[in-house]
Amino acid sequence: MSFDPSTLRYNEAGLIPAIAQEAETGEVLMMAWMNAASIERTLEEGRVVYWSRSRGEFWRKGDTSGHVQELVELRFDCDADCLLLQVRQVGAACHTGRRNCFYRAVRDGDVVEIAAPL
Amino acid sequence: MSFDPSTLRYNEAGLIPAIAQEAETGEVLMMAWMNAASIERTLEEGRVVYWSRSRGEFWRKGDTSGHVQELVELRFDCDADCLLLQVRQVGAACHTGRRNCFYRAVRDGDVVEIAAPL
Repeated sequence: MSFDPSTLRYNEAGLIPAIAQEAETGEVLMMAWMNAASIERTLEEGRVVYWSRSRGEFWRKGDTSGHVQELVELRFDCDADCLLLQVRQVGAACHTGRRNCFYRAVRDGDVVEIAAPL
Repeated sequence: MSFDPSTLRYNEAGLIPAIAQEAETGEVLMMAWMNAASIERTLEEGRVVYWSRSRGEFWRKGDTSGHVQELVELRFDCDADCLLLQVRQVGAACHTGRRNCFYRAVRDGDVVEIAAPL
């Protein structure tokens, strides 16, 4: 069956959450949002293009930081309302300079930083 | 710093996306939603409790299916608007009987099923 981005389920703003996972290691890098057009661009370019909710524009990951996400494979879930992007991440995925965005953990009721900037 | 679920950033419906990842293997199992109360219950019980948007009630994963998610660690991202749950999954995370929900991939423009029910 040929893939049609319009068959996915988007929220009322036309967006779908996209989880980026390092293809080799399984590390979950970040979660951001896409619309149908950014999915098409991502597949065409082989580089991940999100939709920036704050700026209201395409966010071609790495254009300013150099921290490109090369697309390995795009997957979607049973309800077709969430994407899982298998990627190769150049440098840090997180704007804080950390490898991934999930660097805070709850341990014994406290917030602990579990990763430092690269 | 002690963890307070009210300091996280929720959407207009009071919900935050939660990614469940198998702690041992890194497999991304599913994405669902939580509110502050379900986060508190998850931490208290050591078992993942989502908020079901379709049913408008707590969804204590595994209560009907037996496919429990034991919480290993709760993490959150740089913007505090997404959770990453490290879990131990009993059986299938997906309601289709598959180990994880992301069993459809786009390959050469086609949709391919890459996993079968357990």
